[in-house]
Amino acid sequence: MGKLQCKTPVPEDIDIAQAIEPQHIADIASGLGLGASDFDLYGTTKAKVKLSVLDKHANTNNGNYVVVAGITPTPLGEGKSTTTVGLCQALGAHLNKKVVTCVRQPSQGPTFGIKGGAAGGGYSQVIPMEEFNLHMTGDIHAITAANNLLAAAIDARMFHENTQSDAALFNRLCPADKEGKRRFAPVMFTRLKKLGIDKTDPDDLTDEEKGRFARLDIDPAGITWKRVLDTNDRFLRCITVGQGQQEKGMTRQTAFDIAVASEIMAVLALTTSMRDMRERLGRMVIGNSKAGEPVTADDLGVGGALTVLMKDAINPTLMQTLEETPVLVHAGPFANIASGNSSIIADAIALKLVGPEGLVVTEAGFGADIGMEKFMNIKCRYSGLRPDCAVIVATVRALKMHGGGPAVVAGKPLDHAYKTENLELVEKGCCNLARHVENAKKYGVRVVVALNQFATDTEAELEVARKAAMQAGADDAVVCRHHALGGAGAVDLGNAVVKACSLPTNFEFLYPLNISIKEKIKAIATKMYAAAEVTYSPEAEKAIELYTRMGFADLPICMAKTQYSFSSDASKKGAPSGFTLPIKEVRASVGAGFLVPLVGDMMTMPGLPTRPCFYEIDLDPDTGRILGLS
Amino acid sequence: MGKLQCKTPVPEDIDIAQAIEPQHIADIASGLGLGASDFDLYGTTKAKVKLSVLDKHANTNNGNYVVVAGITPTPLGEGKSTTTVGLCQALGAHLNKKVVTCVRQPSQGPTFGIKGGAAGGGYSQVIPMEEFNLHMTGDIHAITAANNLLAAAIDARMFHENTQSDAALFNRLCPADKEGKRRFAPVMFTRLKKLGIDKTDPDDLTDEEKGRFARLDIDPAGITWKRVLDTNDRFLRCITVGQGQQEKGMTRQTAFDIAVASEIMAVLALTTSMRDMRERLGRMVIGNSKAGEPVTADDLGVGGALTVLMKDAINPTLMQTLEETPVLVHAGPFANIASGNSSIIADAIALKLVGPEGLVVTEAGFGADIGMEKFMNIKCRYSGLRPDCAVIVATVRALKMHGGGPAVVAGKPLDHAYKTENLELVEKGCCNLARHVENAKKYGVRVVVALNQFATDTEAELEVARKAAMQAGADDAVVCRHHALGGAGAVDLGNAVVKACSLPTNFEFLYPLNISIKEKIKAIATKMYAAAEVTYSPEAEKAIELYTRMGFADLPICMAKTQYSFSSDASKKGAPSGFTLPIKEVRASVGAGFLVPLVGDMMTMPGLPTRPCFYEIDLDPDTGRILGLS
Repeated sequence: MGKLQCKTPVPEDIDIAQAIEPQHIADIASGLGLGASDFDLYGTTKAKVKLSVLDKHANTNNGNYVVVAGITPTPLGEGKSTTTVGLCQALGAHLNKKVVTCVRQPSQGPTFGIKGGAAGGGYSQVIPMEEFNLHMTGDIHAITAANNLLAAAIDARMFHENTQSDAALFNRLCPADKEGKRRFAPVMFTRLKKLGIDKTDPDDLTDEEKGRFARLDIDPAGITWKRVLDTNDRFLRCITVGQGQQEKGMTRQTAFDIAVASEIMAVLALTTSMRDMRERLGRMVIGNSKAGEPVTADDLGVGGALTVLMKDAINPTLMQTLEETPVLVHAGPFANIASGNSSIIADAIALKLVGPEGLVVTEAGFGADIGMEKFMNIKCRYSGLRPDCAVIVATVRALKMHGGGPAVVAGKPLDHAYKTENLELVEKGCCNLARHVENAKKYGVRVVVALNQFATDTEAELEVARKAAMQAGADDAVVCRHHALGGAGAVDLGNAVVKACSLPTNFEFLYPLNISIKEKIKAIATKMYAAAEVTYSPEAEKAIELYTRMGFADLPICMAKTQYSFSSDASKKGAPSGFTLPIKEVRASVGAGFLVPLVGDMMTMPGLPTRPCFYEIDLDPDTGRILGLS
Repeated sequence: MGKLQCKTPVPEDIDIAQAIEPQHIADIASGLGLGASDFDLYGTTKAKVKLSVLDKHANTNNGNYVVVAGITPTPLGEGKSTTTVGLCQALGAHLNKKVVTCVRQPSQGPTFGIKGGAAGGGYSQVIPMEEFNLHMTGDIHAITAANNLLAAAIDARMFHENTQSDAALFNRLCPADKEGKRRFAPVMFTRLKKLGIDKTDPDDLTDEEKGRFARLDIDPAGITWKRVLDTNDRFLRCITVGQGQQEKGMTRQTAFDIAVASEIMAVLALTTSMRDMRERLGRMVIGNSKAGEPVTADDLGVGGALTVLMKDAINPTLMQTLEETPVLVHAGPFANIASGNSSIIADAIALKLVGPEGLVVTEAGFGADIGMEKFMNIKCRYSGLRPDCAVIVATVRALKMHGGGPAVVAGKPLDHAYKTENLELVEKGCCNLARHVENAKKYGVRVVVALNQFATDTEAELEVARKAAMQAGADDAVVCRHHALGGAGAVDLGNAVVKACSLPTNFEFLYPLNISIKEKIKAIATKMYAAAEVTYSPEAEKAIELYTRMGFADLPICMAKTQYSFSSDASKKGAPSGFTLPIKEVRASVGAGFLVPLVGDMMTMPGLPTRPCFYEIDLDPDTGRILGLS
């Protein structure tokens, strides 16, 4: 451990990653106290840790729980994942702490599009990066399969309902066996109960009951369930299906989302057990009947099959960092429209495995106003886990942008202002960092600021940022150089986090669940974003009314807002306040367990540029080595 | 081994499968002489055998090669997979032979639809059947991802070409680096070569060359590449994409196929090495330019990325039978429009692993007129492997149907004729069996008929069939009861196969490659189907002309014909002859390496019935046990 040979300048990520021979993952598992029956190997570099580990350790005390979030980023990203990994390399390989990194599985789409992979960078990476970025252990593929089985079931059911009488439908749904006896499939009792029918023999139902049971009467205009693919395919953003002759003219406009935007991904991230996952998948709402009642996956009879498709995906995947510290990769819900955090199950398992003296470092996607807020109010609410410390990652680059620096655009050269010392821009931009620190403190946890140093940052610039962080109330603020140095570059950060975790906390949620939907939205908008007021479009008002009537008002709120500003306007940098937050739409992810107010249009299917990353990606047939992944 | 406790009546497949504790797959691997570095574990019941095993055994002599095919089946299937598995259980667990079963990975779609799984049945199964039928080791998911990345690349490229000048396109495709230097990505040299441009510096190209290089000018009407999903989703059979505002009105009608119909699946089945797979994937033709030239995956720059996505899928998956004999599961090309056989790589590895005294039993999908014909003329042509023996599976039920028995319809009760002795129907129907035996003999291999006995079959009926088989020239014909008894029920069949394999063969293809497309089609139509003549629609004529001009006339032929009759009319049972075979369409799978003449409409996306299998499928959250798979 701690024997990385770091080169200057820092080589390409893939070259660093491929130069290190990973330890056999069984040894990493064994280092965590996992026995051979606690995990399933997927080759020699990945293993799925079984859910049963949680039961085994029911009486172990949890470790310290650290969430890594970021300030409002530039489009280039400020190294949140890299800091998460670097911090853990410091803790595990240099500070002799038991530590587990918990991160999201990246979508495969962007790997071939613009963005490249998501395994960290420089000398702070999860390896093998090709396994991390491609397929991994198949969880996203399982989500795709489950999501699309449900989608196929919706259209097929509408088709069959449109062409059959109530009696024929009922008889097909409950076919007679060889003795002529009909029976309900077990999943059907969920629907019977919902309809208030307590009979157990199909033949006992009245004709009216048979009709109500068999006919879901889905309103095509009310279907919110979309198909998904883990591919950046912009031409699937809006499509018409059912144009085949055999579908008899039942066409319908719909769309594909990227797979990580599936509600099933959000379910995976927030579930706490196999039973809980079964229930959540069954109660996912796919739309409403023409009478306005919610229609669920279990109404369609498919909740059990979805669970079967997800049976392995519920187990987190164990991998390792460049310095052989353990990583749990699990779930990757789209921060755009979902919780944006890795899974509760991975965090819970990790907290047991590191034990009371150890640390679990988990990453919250997007800026802290989105990712950390959802971590606290959604993820921690469902998990019952309480963080000890929030790490807020900042860069001089982003602070300069918030201080009024020129626009930062992906793919274009950085302005001179970002490459030379400019204390004034940094100073002005610290308002953004300060706001995030103050926000984090509202949850009653300890706050450490990690200043992720770039080669062009000066000591004076970093010191300005450090002071501003302390002034805003951070418990500590530390410069770190893990990208260039691996864990050795984050030892100070590691010490600061360990110290912060030793101090008392006083956790509280931002809002209780039992207030109205609008009150909850207002709490987030005013206390996290510093908005003056929230406005609602007529569609949003209607949705709030509908979901309240349907009984979903008690769910937590999952905001869909740009991460590039506290406001809804991505161009408003710094720490804007007093603005109006316009809610255009409200959606419900009932199975995942949250309501999604949309502030502006959220992209849920990326596209490919003229020259996608895939042009450079290939495989050397002689060595099997992957080329060109970034 | 050989210690199955068989119950009467035979329990449900899933109950039999779940009652047996599988051996650790590492032990199965070790029994085949595989070392720890020769395979990757995927849990304890699946392992991927590495391609490198082939190199390691370059000097080992191959084992005996047995292909299992079937007579023209009823819609219920005649137990070809079950016989394949049962035969291997007999050879491996009762006759002390080294044996490997090679089978296809089933599509997940039908598992949740009508058909159920495909792991064999009764006491002859591949286990765990839930792993076999769901996800397995992710190969089909990898195919889905690769297929759809290519599809997204096509539409995105057309979009970007429509909105940019030649110069802008070229500059984006070959962006300047920090020093202002442009370079070609390695994959681009394939296209440059095709265009006859031998320059290596982008700046050296003339404007005309830049335009030709950068603009693929794909004809939207000529695109043959479709998207795929491993879901039975009939509403995707015909769709319109690109209806989002951002796609600027570039809508297009297209479709999704079931994932196993992807040409990438066919490539996987027919490839022989990593290098060969890279080349095949790169030369897949997705359509043509407006000038009528074929456009390939490498023209789009994506062949390397597809290979990277398929890097694990190229390794076959090791599983086991109920009697602990080894099974290699690999590829599952749709017999409807592709080769319908499991992979060359799995067969080749297996033949090395069993050694010269051992046997490899591989299954050919569909009736023998389709599956076995393609095995011989496509698969064996590309592999260079030569079969020793063909096993033709027949049932009394199917023979009765061919003899004029009432229609057999899936989901409806069987007619009385099929449950009681009727020697006349059997005798009349033997013409079908005889034709298949004669056909098999045309390849110069040994032929053994396996009469797969059902509980209602009488000794006299079986004897009629046996005699007919011998009369048609089979080397042997044997009754087997592996469904009820496991390997013990197929010992006679095993002995017959071992004996047949000891006899000399004189293998020959049905047709050479260097005759015209029409001559090849005629050879199959007349010699295998007994057609009198072949007719071509104007579209088919046009396609044949086009493909001949494009240089694809030397490819072997992969007929797309119903398996329910030798003719194109599924209702013509028995052994029809003298009919006309109408070719409606001809497609090219250039990467996979065959031309596909379509005889009638072939369904490439199944649907869901009113009450799909998924209604019964669930998971017991307490035990993790899968329920209701069939």
